[in-house]
Amino acid sequence: MKRTLLAASVALLATSAVADDHQKPNIIYVIGDGMGFEFISAYRYAMSNLETKDIAETQFDHYLTGAATTYPEDDTWVTDSAAGATALAAGEKSYNGAIGMDNDKTALKTVMEYAKDSGYMTGSVSTSQVNHATPASFFSHHPSRYEYNEIADLMAQQYIKDEASYDVLLGGGQQYFIRDDKNWVELLQQHGLQVIQDMQMLDQVEQAPVMGLFAPKGLPHAIDEGKDSLARMTSTALRLLSAEDKPFALMIEGSQIDWCGHANDIACAVHEMDSLNKTLEVVNEFIAENPNTLFVMTADHSTGGLTLGRDGEYAWYSDRVMAIESSIATMRGELLEMDADQWADYVADKVNSELTQDYIDELALAAEQQGEAREEALHNALVYITGDITGTGWTGSGHTAVDVPVFATGPNADQFRGYMDNTALGKRLIDIVR
Amino acid sequence: MKRTLLAASVALLATSAVADDHQKPNIIYVIGDGMGFEFISAYRYAMSNLETKDIAETQFDHYLTGAATTYPEDDTWVTDSAAGATALAAGEKSYNGAIGMDNDKTALKTVMEYAKDSGYMTGSVSTSQVNHATPASFFSHHPSRYEYNEIADLMAQQYIKDEASYDVLLGGGQQYFIRDDKNWVELLQQHGLQVIQDMQMLDQVEQAPVMGLFAPKGLPHAIDEGKDSLARMTSTALRLLSAEDKPFALMIEGSQIDWCGHANDIACAVHEMDSLNKTLEVVNEFIAENPNTLFVMTADHSTGGLTLGRDGEYAWYSDRVMAIESSIATMRGELLEMDADQWADYVADKVNSELTQDYIDELALAAEQQGEAREEALHNALVYITGDITGTGWTGSGHTAVDVPVFATGPNADQFRGYMDNTALGKRLIDIVR
Ligand SMILES: [Zn+2]
Ligand SMILES: [Zn+2]
Repeated sequence: MKRTLLAASVALLATSAVADDHQKPNIIYVIGDGMGFEFISAYRYAMSNLETKDIAETQFDHYLTGAATTYPEDDTWVTDSAAGATALAAGEKSYNGAIGMDNDKTALKTVMEYAKDSGYMTGSVSTSQVNHATPASFFSHHPSRYEYNEIADLMAQQYIKDEASYDVLLGGGQQYFIRDDKNWVELLQQHGLQVIQDMQMLDQVEQAPVMGLFAPKGLPHAIDEGKDSLARMTSTALRLLSAEDKPFALMIEGSQIDWCGHANDIACAVHEMDSLNKTLEVVNEFIAENPNTLFVMTADHSTGGLTLGRDGEYAWYSDRVMAIESSIATMRGELLEMDADQWADYVADKVNSELTQDYIDELALAAEQQGEAREEALHNALVYITGDITGTGWTGSGHTAVDVPVFATGPNADQFRGYMDNTALGKRLIDIVR
Repeated sequence: MKRTLLAASVALLATSAVADDHQKPNIIYVIGDGMGFEFISAYRYAMSNLETKDIAETQFDHYLTGAATTYPEDDTWVTDSAAGATALAAGEKSYNGAIGMDNDKTALKTVMEYAKDSGYMTGSVSTSQVNHATPASFFSHHPSRYEYNEIADLMAQQYIKDEASYDVLLGGGQQYFIRDDKNWVELLQQHGLQVIQDMQMLDQVEQAPVMGLFAPKGLPHAIDEGKDSLARMTSTALRLLSAEDKPFALMIEGSQIDWCGHANDIACAVHEMDSLNKTLEVVNEFIAENPNTLFVMTADHSTGGLTLGRDGEYAWYSDRVMAIESSIATMRGELLEMDADQWADYVADKVNSELTQDYIDELALAAEQQGEAREEALHNALVYITGDITGTGWTGSGHTAVDVPVFATGPNADQFRGYMDNTALGKRLIDIVR
């Protein structure tokens, strides 16, 4: 499958190369979950120098071709990740919550299933559990995204029934595949699927098929200890999928941009963007050596109502974002384990900034609560502090209806120019692989 | 200058048509002030049917080619309209507040000035005063955008000195050109510039040069009584500028998208977008008949931190946005003239929705205030009510640093694809006209 640029340039002379040219293109389909334009702007400026205006060139600067609308078929303009992924995977609108299913709960054939029929290798890489909304919508069909055990069952059963209905599936999700009542890992291994649970093993996998479950649910946030995991998984996926003389279709999800958005955690979001950027570097290297590869990237929606600047101030403090050392979730977890009179010092240390009396008061208010209320108030205090320090605005914990960016390069990339609906991405990719 | 599609198709046969082909292209440069992607999404969905998902096809669906970064040269990522317009007009970064001037306060030659040197006709159309930041940055040079009288003086003096340094200048601004100490209108007319102050006169203007000042400052909001003004002015500008055997460069600003954004007034913003959409219909018709026209559209920044959906609810009520009958500014003005015990009824009537007790309480709180505090509290109550009814989020009254859309079609449109800096738009247009 691998083809150098040189080989491509003599394609017309060598018969094998001509055959190669007629091979359907590889598909690398990247979804930044929740990655509205704000997240791309935020990441660029976080990597750049606020004072000198030395602007970082990120991988997101390349290949922008258009934008996509994201609304679901429900009675709302705001999609969830399931309806979003279903549109991107199967080219059809559906209701919020639908995993590869139409409004009438019939299964929708996805680009991965069409690709398999056409002789493609298929796979997915995500920092969420492999049975989370986005990857699940490409490889299974279920009326409700939150039935994680049932979706894991479907994905395992389907592999066993269809024999290798996917070739590479990397992410988290141990707790859904290894349960008290059911150990899918053993069964899958009996059917020839290698299952690894330690990221150190990635380099030792010699060939597909392989499933990697590297965490009970999602992988750690990039800002905490998950910095390189998406790039490492992607690197292995590309190596395994391109090793055989077949085209492949790989979905790569930067899953936790969305999770940081839901948490209104700007530093967390920017580090997830960095993790995706590193992954795109791996992808770009692959594309340079394998030009018969169509790269398409988009988001399923934007999350949190992120804005760079707020409260009438014409400022967004990218340097202060990069000074924050932990996700809000990690800070909150650690704070709940310690005495409340240590909170202010801990937070000042983690955000690398002195706390105003206002911030200290917010923490004190949280300290007065107990149980879940304490957890929630602490979360809100940390959102307030990190948002106020950095000039970051959020309008809520949910998704928004704004259009999202579309990027494309490689064969047929022209089909992804200008404004389009998210279903058009799924439809066009299906037309290309089928 | 006018050329039909048929004429273009026989261009290779007819010498005059060949000469025509060698003429530099007309430039139609549209700036939606404050028009981030959110405003485009909001407008589309406001025009569409929330329940049936019958999606309106707006003019904004055509010609999207990329996105632009907007940061100024200041110590911030968030631009104002002056630095933004200066970048778009002259291709150089500058500080917030700069009108066609560099960081060191030297004048920057703008695309309109280069165009004039190359024999172009030039003009601008805006719903702001003609000496407001965006149009002023194309036609004058001043260190500070808020010196409206001085900028009016510069624009008038320059016309007189250079004889027709612009050919069409339409918008508001009577109070700056006709002052107690200075009547520029008389002087300009003596130097051959027609000045009209009534929009009814637009159709009767037979040829350039003309200045139109149709309001003391900005024109009325589209939602109030300004529905068609931008399209009407544009229609006249295109007629006059294309009447001579020269190419032209016309800047068209949808000025008040930004103003509605600053006011956190979603209905106001959507109606401004509609006014720009109507204008784009006029532009599109012109382009169809005059294919040697380069159309480029962008925004200088996004305003208000608008989000479609908020507070964790996966909803944005486009139908309720369209049910609102007045701008917040108009409502506030009328409310301040009446007894506070009539406020709730008036507001319920204007927003076409029953008011919750919460909304009534907000109004009552405002009623307790006096003077400016009353005005401000009333404004905030109306922002709260319209935002809450419609599910619209805002994070402040200022601008944000998010990247903005870029649209282009016509000769050289390929130069406006993908990601670019806002200065690249100015630079590339200058290269095309010079
Ligand atoms: Zn999502
Ligand atoms: Zn502006």
